[in-house]
Amino acid sequence: MRESVEKTTQLRELLSSPDTECILEAHDGLSARIVEEAGFKGIWGSGLAISAALGVRDNNEASWTQVLDVVEFMSDATTIPVLLDGDTGFGNFNNMRRLVTKLEQRHAGGVCIEDKIFPKTNSFIDGENQPLAEIREFAGKIRAGKDVQSDPDFCIVARVEGFIAGWGLDEVLRRATAYAEAGADAVLIHSKKSTAEDIEAFMERWDGRAPVVVVPTMYYDTPVERFEELGISLVIWANHLVRASIGAMQETAARIKAERSIASVQDDIVPVKEIFRLQGADELKEAERRYLA
Amino acid sequence: MRESVEKTTQLRELLSSPDTECILEAHDGLSARIVEEAGFKGIWGSGLAISAALGVRDNNEASWTQVLDVVEFMSDATTIPVLLDGDTGFGNFNNMRRLVTKLEQRHAGGVCIEDKIFPKTNSFIDGENQPLAEIREFAGKIRAGKDVQSDPDFCIVARVEGFIAGWGLDEVLRRATAYAEAGADAVLIHSKKSTAEDIEAFMERWDGRAPVVVVPTMYYDTPVERFEELGISLVIWANHLVRASIGAMQETAARIKAERSIASVQDDIVPVKEIFRLQGADELKEAERRYLA
Amino acid sequence: MRESVEKTTQLRELLSSPDTECILEAHDGLSARIVEEAGFKGIWGSGLAISAALGVRDNNEASWTQVLDVVEFMSDATTIPVLLDGDTGFGNFNNMRRLVTKLEQRHAGGVCIEDKIFPKTNSFIDGENQPLAEIREFAGKIRAGKDVQSDPDFCIVARVEGFIAGWGLDEVLRRATAYAEAGADAVLIHSKKSTAEDIEAFMERWDGRAPVVVVPTMYYDTPVERFEELGISLVIWANHLVRASIGAMQETAARIKAERSIASVQDDIVPVKEIFRLQGADELKEAERRYLA
Amino acid sequence: MRESVEKTTQLRELLSSPDTECILEAHDGLSARIVEEAGFKGIWGSGLAISAALGVRDNNEASWTQVLDVVEFMSDATTIPVLLDGDTGFGNFNNMRRLVTKLEQRHAGGVCIEDKIFPKTNSFIDGENQPLAEIREFAGKIRAGKDVQSDPDFCIVARVEGFIAGWGLDEVLRRATAYAEAGADAVLIHSKKSTAEDIEAFMERWDGRAPVVVVPTMYYDTPVERFEELGISLVIWANHLVRASIGAMQETAARIKAERSIASVQDDIVPVKEIFRLQGADELKEAERRYLA
Repeated sequence: MRESVEKTTQLRELLSSPDTECILEAHDGLSARIVEEAGFKGIWGSGLAISAALGVRDNNEASWTQVLDVVEFMSDATTIPVLLDGDTGFGNFNNMRRLVTKLEQRHAGGVCIEDKIFPKTNSFIDGENQPLAEIREFAGKIRAGKDVQSDPDFCIVARVEGFIAGWGLDEVLRRATAYAEAGADAVLIHSKKSTAEDIEAFMERWDGRAPVVVVPTMYYDTPVERFEELGISLVIWANHLVRASIGAMQETAARIKAERSIASVQDDIVPVKEIFRLQGADELKEAERRYLA
Repeated sequence: MRESVEKTTQLRELLSSPDTECILEAHDGLSARIVEEAGFKGIWGSGLAISAALGVRDNNEASWTQVLDVVEFMSDATTIPVLLDGDTGFGNFNNMRRLVTKLEQRHAGGVCIEDKIFPKTNSFIDGENQPLAEIREFAGKIRAGKDVQSDPDFCIVARVEGFIAGWGLDEVLRRATAYAEAGADAVLIHSKKSTAEDIEAFMERWDGRAPVVVVPTMYYDTPVERFEELGISLVIWANHLVRASIGAMQETAARIKAERSIASVQDDIVPVKEIFRLQGADELKEAERRYLA
Repeated sequence: MRESVEKTTQLRELLSSPDTECILEAHDGLSARIVEEAGFKGIWGSGLAISAALGVRDNNEASWTQVLDVVEFMSDATTIPVLLDGDTGFGNFNNMRRLVTKLEQRHAGGVCIEDKIFPKTNSFIDGENQPLAEIREFAGKIRAGKDVQSDPDFCIVARVEGFIAGWGLDEVLRRATAYAEAGADAVLIHSKKSTAEDIEAFMERWDGRAPVVVVPTMYYDTPVERFEELGISLVIWANHLVRASIGAMQETAARIKAERSIASVQDDIVPVKEIFRLQGADELKEAERRYLA
Repeated sequence: MRESVEKTTQLRELLSSPDTECILEAHDGLSARIVEEAGFKGIWGSGLAISAALGVRDNNEASWTQVLDVVEFMSDATTIPVLLDGDTGFGNFNNMRRLVTKLEQRHAGGVCIEDKIFPKTNSFIDGENQPLAEIREFAGKIRAGKDVQSDPDFCIVARVEGFIAGWGLDEVLRRATAYAEAGADAVLIHSKKSTAEDIEAFMERWDGRAPVVVVPTMYYDTPVERFEELGISLVIWANHLVRASIGAMQETAARIKAERSIASVQDDIVPVKEIFRLQGADELKEAERRYLA
């Protein structure tokens, strides 16, 4: 059954509302459901977290359809919108068109694409500067995505990697403006500084022609109130569930190995029936009564 | 590059060695790598955990090729064998043949199939007794799997659900014997009692014609030393990483939601660079020097 | 961009119109497009043809999601509805629910399920009688599918295998009635006789509570005019493109092998540019001008 | 059961034997089996034909794992090697490494990669010159593939697009030499002239440091004897089965539509039982006796 409010529409409202909304990362159907149950209004389908969960690197090692399969499980498991971290759109404008069509079919809320070159590198990997896409080419990719979407509320967010790649504010503004002109429903200004200074500088000069999205992974100390003052529309907490799960699994595995027993971890992990609850086992029991009786 | 010792051979050694070995559940490439790093010699590809991670129920809601895709990521991310929880073989003897062939191609170590009816129900869901497969039909499935495998060390474990389904020891022994005769490389005796009494009763009368595997999810208090006394070959800790990850993610999501901030969780979750380490980012950097320079 | 008339609605009109409509088999995106270009109003996603094209048997050797992937390519390549030959629904009522949801997302027009046991056997393979599903269980599967669909026009066709399995007219009528009562949008009466006598007998007693679909593979001599007289709503020509392609490929391969040359076949096969045309190469060229310029 | 001679070894022998061998295109499991039954010793997994059969364009519209799925069905259906047309390796050297690993697992014989830019354009689409990959980058891709393969006989063929892109003989020789030095098991010299003059010019100056492969789609009149004189190792007939199937399906669909009947085409297409034969229905019947009795 479709959601009473389409997921695309829900995401559009998150972006266009005057409030500063916050969404949280998920990387599979299970974590997506946990995000929703915690009360968040949207899910960040993080490329880093999805690739990490799969066991591969965030360098297009998983194919775009393998990522799509993950999004489908995430979307099926929840009633709030997934905003997919869609790398570069996985190719040129034509690959972007296919991606948008496929995401709409899976009832994603939208996709964020970044102005890098395929195959991409994670923004936080130390090292050499990463070349950026040409503005005209990237704007064409946005236009192509907007033209192909069938639901007017499907959102395309343009992620500007200028600060990450060592460019200055002027270039970032030039790109953000061009992407908004091309039809982007929001611009994501990315920064790897440990304070929000890049974002503050940007917002001071941004004319507001499109909502602004930020990912404060590195400037995690900045309170949301500051983003509210700046007029940020959406804050993405981008990888915190996968990081929580890694620590917990490493610790649990180490204890079981050291103690050669599961007895002592038993009380520190959720019971098996919590898995069943998250899977919706009750609904199936009820359905069996309806359809098998 | 292939492992120096094939994964199939590694799993066969776990089953045939005189020691009682213990393997731990994983449900994706990431958790599989964590199991290996913790020092375990094998991975249980749990049907319950895999389906939970995908966001679906453990009732064949994911197709068998979707499960296979998960196994492939798990196997690619590790050098120790995955023993897949292969439900009923996902159909009849012919589906079992395809499953074995596909698992061998993905370098799994082996598969465990259970004598239930497709589509399956999880053994721990409360409720009515579950009908079992006919012995002759299930033995034919085992024979078909053994005949089709190309690597002689690929392991097929026959899971006997007799105790779970409310049958007595005689029926369980009859089935275990028949499955071993049909070529099963081990028998898994499943029980949902809170003590090991079913297992003890079985081992007292088992003639040892095949190694025995147990899953002490419900009788978690039984120490491994007891399994050693009984002559159990392999102990499967079947769902503990997914349970650890659920608790950690729920708690982290709740805190972020309540505090509207990621600042306080920052020190309780692993850093982003731990994700990169688990993904093998260093290898890629090194490879870039080799192939792009 | 969505079709001006939804594919589900198109299929519903084929079933409910007073005319006898005819649809043709396809087994991949290419053959689907050829069916549409020939002027047909619908496509039969034949289980036999799809499995044959994949290179496997029509016994659930391909997983249901692999079949779904084929349907997605077929649907993406065309603007007319695909009616998928959905075997038994690939499991129980719950698998049927997932199938319907997934088919709706891929913009299929509907699905036909048959009252056999999973894993299925093709109806035309010689040999022993095939057991049928229990009426109540199959009706529950239909109800579950109807309850889960989000688009009211998505069509579920119930295929009655009673004649094939050696049962008489009474049993076939009893089943067809029960399935229509359960909500089936049409009943498909299958027969492997070389004349339409089974169909004629059925139509004489059928009360018309649901449209009737037939598959005259074996009684191919019966003219469509006869089906019109009988009041048949939809005729499925079920496997003729895959059969055409096999003969042509076998002959071409044999000639190339014998002549050790492609020179003589050159004029008997379509030119390379016909492949490009079918793929829509022109649209991409035009789009490149729009988005890359 | 594995082939008595590994498919990789079979392909290596085709490339290294003194004879001029010929292989034929296939695009799915069915056409692959037809190629084998016609007596060919190898299968060309054509990117153009595979994408056409799927219903998409030859511009990386299908993801690399979707292409891989097709290769898997082709390889499963046959005992002769598939040489996959692997486009550009679907990304950089790292994507190439994954591709090779995955192809080995699916028992492909080898892969051919071309020195173009991702996403690729088909070589025969009219229009502007296509930029080529940098030699050093492409050579790194070849080295990466060779380093990662586990079976020493897996073949990597380097396709030189220099003539296609408008470069002269010197550039083509320079590239072919560099690719052979990097470890390519053969070089494929591509040309879209209507005679073999490009090939002849190349062979006159080629020092034979690697076997040479040609694709005479455009110079189809050149007899194999001429390739033998030139010392060509392998001739690829690259798209003839998909072209044969298109014509046959179009004609059959048109006739059925025009005649509103399948009666007259019945004798011009293979019978249903020929589908069953190609699928290996007999083996299943025999296996049912073995495993279900």
